[in-house]
Amino acid sequence: MIAMVRYGKEERRKVLEAELTKHPFFTDEELARRFRVSVSTIRLDRGVLGIPEVRERTRVVAQEAYSTLKSLDDQEVIGELQELVIGERARSAMTIEESMVLAKARVARGHYLFAQANSLAIALVDAPVALTGSVELKFIRPVQLGELVVAEGKVSQRKGDKYWVEVLLLVNTEVVLRGQWILFAKEKEEVREMEME
Amino acid sequence: MIAMVRYGKEERRKVLEAELTKHPFFTDEELARRFRVSVSTIRLDRGVLGIPEVRERTRVVAQEAYSTLKSLDDQEVIGELQELVIGERARSAMTIEESMVLAKARVARGHYLFAQANSLAIALVDAPVALTGSVELKFIRPVQLGELVVAEGKVSQRKGDKYWVEVLLLVNTEVVLRGQWILFAKEKEEVREMEME
Repeated sequence: MIAMVRYGKEERRKVLEAELTKHPFFTDEELARRFRVSVSTIRLDRGVLGIPEVRERTRVVAQEAYSTLKSLDDQEVIGELQELVIGERARSAMTIEESMVLAKARVARGHYLFAQANSLAIALVDAPVALTGSVELKFIRPVQLGELVVAEGKVSQRKGDKYWVEVLLLVNTEVVLRGQWILFAKEKEEVREMEME
Repeated sequence: MIAMVRYGKEERRKVLEAELTKHPFFTDEELARRFRVSVSTIRLDRGVLGIPEVRERTRVVAQEAYSTLKSLDDQEVIGELQELVIGERARSAMTIEESMVLAKARVARGHYLFAQANSLAIALVDAPVALTGSVELKFIRPVQLGELVVAEGKVSQRKGDKYWVEVLLLVNTEVVLRGQWILFAKEKEEVREMEME
């Protein structure tokens, strides 16, 4: 997304400001790598531009994201919700802890990754209740203890109460799981006696 | 599986004994319905045949199943393991509790159903470590609080370290979720640096 060229100081600050407005989750380390400057240069740039550090930026955006939730309660999102534009895109982050790995393989259990991705897909549906119809998952590589998994979801299509959602799980910039969801938006009352099509 | 005809007493007991050897998990209520006799008739039959009640039958089979586990530890199976013939077939049961349902919809969250099915698929792989490659899920109908979900898994194909597994989740005899897994059998040492194909 950010071109890997070296900018002059003024231009770099302009691009930096624009990029952080669109993508507030980059750390100083990632920005340094992308702009091919030192971390302290990025910190100086942020200081001049009056942009707070990533933790503070994330906190502000996350508060908005949680307050936007409709189909889930706050604690029902698996992972930490970072961004949510219902019907469009969403993002969450989850660090793989000891309790989430298989004793023998020492890699994250499939259902924790599924839970993060599935709850993000549900959060994207614009209705009080969203039900999963079908899912196709491709596990690209195992996720290790301690890794930070970022889920990025987007609604690719919508027809009436039917949503097509794609979710990618990433570690750094590497895709570790890719999934396609079909979900159904429902009113609370419809669910009890319902049969999924 | 059991024909819905009415048998004479002797024949019924013979069929009952044969069926319970193959399928030890039927309750007296289910058997009564299937044989079109009363529950007390079934109890009497079992008494004459010296067959213990379903809880005891399940306990014995489950002990064997848990001792067969290879790719998972006992507590890593989500749900209660009831049967396991590694490389062939497996079965588990899980009751949907309050903590597993969505606050708004009051139906089981997708990742609990996925966890039950996924751990059963993994248990079927004949190796110290099994990794999920891809999954296709179809959620047929939502599962309500209090319902007992039985997972039935079977290995449909196997080629070298690659397994194709089908898992059905059932409530009573109704299929509520159908899934196809592709898994990879691995030795412990292979996993750390591995990339899934």
